[in-house]
Amino acid sequence: MSHNSFGHLFRVTTWGESHGPAIGCIVDGCPPRIPLSEADIQPWLDRRRPGQSKFTTQRQEPDAVRILSGVFQGQTTGTPIALTIDNMDQRSKDYGEIAERFRPGHADLTYELKYGISDWRGGGRSSARETASRVAAGAVARLVLGAGVRIRGALVQIGARAIDRARWDWDQVDANQFFCPDPAAAASWEEYLGEVRKAGSSVGAVIEVVAEGVPPGLGAPIYGKLDADLAAAFMGINAVKGVEIGAGFAAAALSGEENADQMRMRDGEVVFGSNQAGGILGGISTGQPVVARFAVKPTSSILTPRQGVNRSGQEVDVSTRGRHDPCVGIRAVPVGEAMMACVLADHLLRQRAQNPDAPERARLPRN
Amino acid sequence: MSHNSFGHLFRVTTWGESHGPAIGCIVDGCPPRIPLSEADIQPWLDRRRPGQSKFTTQRQEPDAVRILSGVFQGQTTGTPIALTIDNMDQRSKDYGEIAERFRPGHADLTYELKYGISDWRGGGRSSARETASRVAAGAVARLVLGAGVRIRGALVQIGARAIDRARWDWDQVDANQFFCPDPAAAASWEEYLGEVRKAGSSVGAVIEVVAEGVPPGLGAPIYGKLDADLAAAFMGINAVKGVEIGAGFAAAALSGEENADQMRMRDGEVVFGSNQAGGILGGISTGQPVVARFAVKPTSSILTPRQGVNRSGQEVDVSTRGRHDPCVGIRAVPVGEAMMACVLADHLLRQRAQNPDAPERARLPRN
Amino acid sequence: MSHNSFGHLFRVTTWGESHGPAIGCIVDGCPPRIPLSEADIQPWLDRRRPGQSKFTTQRQEPDAVRILSGVFQGQTTGTPIALTIDNMDQRSKDYGEIAERFRPGHADLTYELKYGISDWRGGGRSSARETASRVAAGAVARLVLGAGVRIRGALVQIGARAIDRARWDWDQVDANQFFCPDPAAAASWEEYLGEVRKAGSSVGAVIEVVAEGVPPGLGAPIYGKLDADLAAAFMGINAVKGVEIGAGFAAAALSGEENADQMRMRDGEVVFGSNQAGGILGGISTGQPVVARFAVKPTSSILTPRQGVNRSGQEVDVSTRGRHDPCVGIRAVPVGEAMMACVLADHLLRQRAQNPDAPERARLPRN
Amino acid sequence: MSHNSFGHLFRVTTWGESHGPAIGCIVDGCPPRIPLSEADIQPWLDRRRPGQSKFTTQRQEPDAVRILSGVFQGQTTGTPIALTIDNMDQRSKDYGEIAERFRPGHADLTYELKYGISDWRGGGRSSARETASRVAAGAVARLVLGAGVRIRGALVQIGARAIDRARWDWDQVDANQFFCPDPAAAASWEEYLGEVRKAGSSVGAVIEVVAEGVPPGLGAPIYGKLDADLAAAFMGINAVKGVEIGAGFAAAALSGEENADQMRMRDGEVVFGSNQAGGILGGISTGQPVVARFAVKPTSSILTPRQGVNRSGQEVDVSTRGRHDPCVGIRAVPVGEAMMACVLADHLLRQRAQNPDAPERARLPRN
Repeated sequence: MSHNSFGHLFRVTTWGESHGPAIGCIVDGCPPRIPLSEADIQPWLDRRRPGQSKFTTQRQEPDAVRILSGVFQGQTTGTPIALTIDNMDQRSKDYGEIAERFRPGHADLTYELKYGISDWRGGGRSSARETASRVAAGAVARLVLGAGVRIRGALVQIGARAIDRARWDWDQVDANQFFCPDPAAAASWEEYLGEVRKAGSSVGAVIEVVAEGVPPGLGAPIYGKLDADLAAAFMGINAVKGVEIGAGFAAAALSGEENADQMRMRDGEVVFGSNQAGGILGGISTGQPVVARFAVKPTSSILTPRQGVNRSGQEVDVSTRGRHDPCVGIRAVPVGEAMMACVLADHLLRQRAQNPDAPERARLPRN
Repeated sequence: MSHNSFGHLFRVTTWGESHGPAIGCIVDGCPPRIPLSEADIQPWLDRRRPGQSKFTTQRQEPDAVRILSGVFQGQTTGTPIALTIDNMDQRSKDYGEIAERFRPGHADLTYELKYGISDWRGGGRSSARETASRVAAGAVARLVLGAGVRIRGALVQIGARAIDRARWDWDQVDANQFFCPDPAAAASWEEYLGEVRKAGSSVGAVIEVVAEGVPPGLGAPIYGKLDADLAAAFMGINAVKGVEIGAGFAAAALSGEENADQMRMRDGEVVFGSNQAGGILGGISTGQPVVARFAVKPTSSILTPRQGVNRSGQEVDVSTRGRHDPCVGIRAVPVGEAMMACVLADHLLRQRAQNPDAPERARLPRN
Repeated sequence: MSHNSFGHLFRVTTWGESHGPAIGCIVDGCPPRIPLSEADIQPWLDRRRPGQSKFTTQRQEPDAVRILSGVFQGQTTGTPIALTIDNMDQRSKDYGEIAERFRPGHADLTYELKYGISDWRGGGRSSARETASRVAAGAVARLVLGAGVRIRGALVQIGARAIDRARWDWDQVDANQFFCPDPAAAASWEEYLGEVRKAGSSVGAVIEVVAEGVPPGLGAPIYGKLDADLAAAFMGINAVKGVEIGAGFAAAALSGEENADQMRMRDGEVVFGSNQAGGILGGISTGQPVVARFAVKPTSSILTPRQGVNRSGQEVDVSTRGRHDPCVGIRAVPVGEAMMACVLADHLLRQRAQNPDAPERARLPRN
Repeated sequence: MSHNSFGHLFRVTTWGESHGPAIGCIVDGCPPRIPLSEADIQPWLDRRRPGQSKFTTQRQEPDAVRILSGVFQGQTTGTPIALTIDNMDQRSKDYGEIAERFRPGHADLTYELKYGISDWRGGGRSSARETASRVAAGAVARLVLGAGVRIRGALVQIGARAIDRARWDWDQVDANQFFCPDPAAAASWEEYLGEVRKAGSSVGAVIEVVAEGVPPGLGAPIYGKLDADLAAAFMGINAVKGVEIGAGFAAAALSGEENADQMRMRDGEVVFGSNQAGGILGGISTGQPVVARFAVKPTSSILTPRQGVNRSGQEVDVSTRGRHDPCVGIRAVPVGEAMMACVLADHLLRQRAQNPDAPERARLPRN
């Protein structure tokens, strides 16, 4: 049991604070002989990198990853892969005031209550900066899963403004600064979020992550169900307040007839008429796309003063100055993809251990 | 890593199938010298017990728990507590047909894809019957938490019909067969669900679980966050498709100003003006009530025929005969409470290990 | 992390006290579709069963195992296998005095120091009776390993009397009541141990366990080395004070030349000229037999009075009356075999997860 | 489950290869507000550092540790502590030949069998260099344990030459280059080992580690026993082939009367007349010194040619050139101390979680 580790067989342990010299992670359990270099990881980090639009934090970080172990002559060796990312743009002075104040909506107070000390510079350990390590680990996880598994995320709601799913176009996701699959929504958000930003306010968002090509049979009932592990993975991302799989909360309002994903046979394989289940039944993947969504609360750092308290137990007003990020949910898209990749890679290895012949059963029912 | 274990220091391992001779669990890590007898566990099992209303399965089970180890002279000894519940009403004949058919919405197919074998009698391991073990373990967890922590659950939505939160009355929860805190909603549901049942259909539900008196500081960032562990706990309950904490998915549509739970000082303690956070910031409890909700899909076993396939790869129609449960979400209320209790007990022990002096910091900021 | 669990992917959780109603274990992670019934487990329990000779405890226990879950139509299903063994011959009255006295060499005092309570009846949780669960789990582990892996144990020393290894004959092990591979030593021990027993004294023993047919490549460096896991497994058996692999402590006195197991090629496979390594290099199996030994201290329950203290802090003399077991090491042989089987089964699954193609590399170096 | 992690609540994850850019570890679960800087760690690393005598490897490494996270304003914060040590003197050219050859006694072959690839430079991951990370983690563990727990190690045997325990003087340990507590033995070893070195040969050693001041009650029966965890910790150190606690293997030859550590009361505390148990009964610490020994095999790298095979499956002779270390056991002394510290720190936290009031029971039996 390690507080800062994630996964069991494909296991990621992260370390580092927002304003320390570096952050990083160790990826343990990676199978050997997978070609790996920094070039396989950097593009994913670049997607998450701050400072790329006016809607994300202006902190300038190259987020250049280095591999310090576990790779030899261009291939993984099966030993732990140490990845580090130096912190370059720390500007601690911007954050000096939070040394004394507990900001509403932030973890300042709870870290103090728990530990009696915290590295308050830039949020320290609770900073979203930690998610860079997740993205780096997720890049390795994608290689473990192989090209047959495709994991993509998209922003499907900002504030109360949801996309029109009828306009979903994956190709649009990288064509706007919101990872938005609906170009009309993206255009609308630009204006809307611009106003939010100017008002010094913030809004939340909903992210959807879809994994196609997931082999059937992944998931370890009863307490290592694929959906349970995904729920922990997404809920553990900074600022996330809700997670759902497939129909999710809307499933409550469905009838049993509507909810049942009916099955037919096609060329010896089971095909489904719908995917209310989000690709998971009984905690085990069905072979359909795994579909998950998570909700991110509005950025707590806003320009409007809010009531807080300080370390001396005095009531104070707190507002953010300097950098301001009107919707932290945007950069959560690559983080959500990474967590999906890590969960699936872990379950792929777990499946191999107990059920090495499961791939042979993918074409089922056997004729 | 154990597929059938839950928790780290307060750790529950369950076993058993719906139609085997018994089900049960081992509770490991329980502190010693806690008074414990079957009478402390049985009332919670009785709440979950089937056959108590026309809206839950008619299977008749006394669900009488026995303690086989870990208790001596009426107190826990710190060694593993083995709890068993005999299966009495198995009626395997009712389920004979599912030996051959994969039912839409059920785990029949995925167990087969994963294991190549499954105990199909009554759903086997994937039956909701397994949750009785969770409820038994949760009863022990409540004792670990002590009387200062109060955990209560309620049904807040059936189908599309949500309660009116303005009418919330905890005393009503045990006064109707739905665990519903709104008496008007309960009355409406009775009629509505009666129609659903007669139609041979089913609907989903949303359950809310609230824990009051949770000490601040519980939760282990970054990957053992209290909310992340709760998300896994609830998502791992049969038929759950969504989990949210505090404002949950609605947080996406809030502004930063609305979402910030402002803080004031009262008698040397921090008090909050709202609880959008659901009692958790940065994965760590704040001392406010921990509030979580989860969505349960409609019962997959319905009388209307749905398209499925059989083990021979033939397309078949599947419908349920005999027992029929129009809303499995009802009995999920005590299960949700139990999972909340198990998560909190585990984190209480984890907190003690690393931060034994945290309770002294609960009154904070120190004056 | 569970105090009462062993293994990671093939994971055994035991429960029960010496004089409670039953003891048992849950075997989690077992692969599916392995034929399993009580008849596969009982013979191993019968080997360990007490009351079979005048040199082991006279407690009469049938040790009849029951499978309560995880097996369907004669095959494992991949879900947890619950095994129970009822306690029949408890005679708590024999042990009444130890309710008050801390016996030298026993865990009475330390359980009290740790937990402030203990089920003192027959040693409670610290009784050797718990090892029956290990033997039952080990029987399942043998089936996971398959017929190609042969695990056998033998008693190689009682008191100061070691066997003559030149006379080692595996067929003799079941031909005497000591699991002794040297018939001359067995004869000598019978007389010697008879005298020890008459004198109300006891002696220790050394057990050797050998696993043949272990695939090369098992073991997870750096902290899940095969030898490290074996060391924990054997040291965790009651009364064990030392563990060694291959040459063991004698390796300290060897020269580098003597210690090196030289390699030659035969029919495309590496063969070794010796096995000082005990089949493990760098924590990973070589394909040679895995050879381990462990030392068991003399039974602490002896008829000679020894100085102890009681719960009231008074100095008292303690001696055992009634049942008396002059050498607990004898019955440790089947327990040692079981622990070897559990460790190897766990590592076999771990190997599959990360290195599914390792078996193809067993013939190495590739020509 | 992580192959490269050790411990549960005080958890160490190491990474790095002998000839990569650096090695390091993450220490997770460390309690907050412990003063910590590099100066607390460096002295322990300096004790283990190579190149300090003619009897240890001549590799020149400053082994300068850096703390990259988890410490703020001179104190631990409860978040993961990342420690790194750069590799400076790698001289890969010295090792080029082993790229092709499997050296007897080394892990070259088994890494290849397991992974199908290995970083062969300097032994890669299986190099003793990894133990520097253990020593660094152990330095943190000592701070968790506090000044009341004193952990010291000593070399008690080189080759067949054991010390005279009657001459044991802890002050001598740092007065010679062998960590030897017997000055006469140290003098004899100097001559003896000089000859071994000149002959291009090597010998093994036995190390003893003693922890004084260990609180009673540490250890988690049944499968997390303190002695079982120590056994794994020591057996997992490179080249170790045997571990024993207290009387160890000699216990086999003791009578029950000799082995029983008799108890008397002194000033309200239990005192023991001997310590055959090595401070552990039933897997739980008694409050006596915890005494463990482990045996290290002779260095496998010797100048004498030995029969090996190469990657092409050809029979070759293998001998070491260049650096040569006649007794790797010497530098295992600080490593053994570090592992003892890590195990005890982990168990201290585990004890706090389940039995926070155990320290109040240390004076027992209560009067």
